[in-house]
Amino acid sequence: MIGLIVTGHGHFATGLESALALLGGEPNDFIAVDFPDGEGTDDLTAHLAQALEELSACDGVLVCCDLLGGSPFKAAVTLAQGRADVRVIAGTNLPLLLETHLTRAGYTSVEALADAALSSGHASLVKFEMAEPDEDDVPEEDDDDI
Amino acid sequence: MIGLIVTGHGHFATGLESALALLGGEPNDFIAVDFPDGEGTDDLTAHLAQALEELSACDGVLVCCDLLGGSPFKAAVTLAQGRADVRVIAGTNLPLLLETHLTRAGYTSVEALADAALSSGHASLVKFEMAEPDEDDVPEEDDDDI
Repeated sequence: MIGLIVTGHGHFATGLESALALLGGEPNDFIAVDFPDGEGTDDLTAHLAQALEELSACDGVLVCCDLLGGSPFKAAVTLAQGRADVRVIAGTNLPLLLETHLTRAGYTSVEALADAALSSGHASLVKFEMAEPDEDDVPEEDDDDI
Repeated sequence: MIGLIVTGHGHFATGLESALALLGGEPNDFIAVDFPDGEGTDDLTAHLAQALEELSACDGVLVCCDLLGGSPFKAAVTLAQGRADVRVIAGTNLPLLLETHLTRAGYTSVEALADAALSSGHASLVKFEMAEPDEDDVPEEDDDDI
């Protein structure tokens, strides 16, 4: 099984974890690493390193970050350097995480799982199209009937 | 100012709110509506209706949901029906929320803000491309030097 880490500013990670648990059950081989107010980047890096160590028996690890360029992403990328079994993505949303969690047993390549995760994320990012009353659709009175 | 509501299963919404506050400051005209374990859909709908009411002085409201089809999304869509000033999107990630929060002062149309939010979300969903050591790049010893 490929392991999953979700990490982000504040309580992004545990917030997503709580949603995932409600929708897909308590996940195994899954660790949420928060970066709360007041914590330093050294603490964050240590927590991420510890999470990778705890998932060392997995067939690779996908690290799902909140956004590109923040401290969680930078720390994840630094730890992943030189490791072919670790991939890092950013812009994580819940459908991406849910589908990745539910389908990862079918993957042996963390690279392929990362690509599938991105596809899920993009496909799930949508706007609900409202059915608004349209003035053009209102039939005009026929002058001939006046 | 267009108002923002973020809503989702578990503590998705307050998790994102905590990250947003760290990155962009405590947001105004912004309400996070969680749907925690044990709460019913009637409670959720009431909390969303109350949030819309609290933002009634705004120039429209964009509701950012965790995912398509869950209870938070369904409740938001139901409340938005027939309201031209409310739009609902799903698959919310942090970059989408951050950029929407920081740029919304420049929008008067909630429809346009929703479209911009989706663009931000898609643009920010990326994989970090590792610079792996490539065997082909390792210079071979020159036999002539042996």
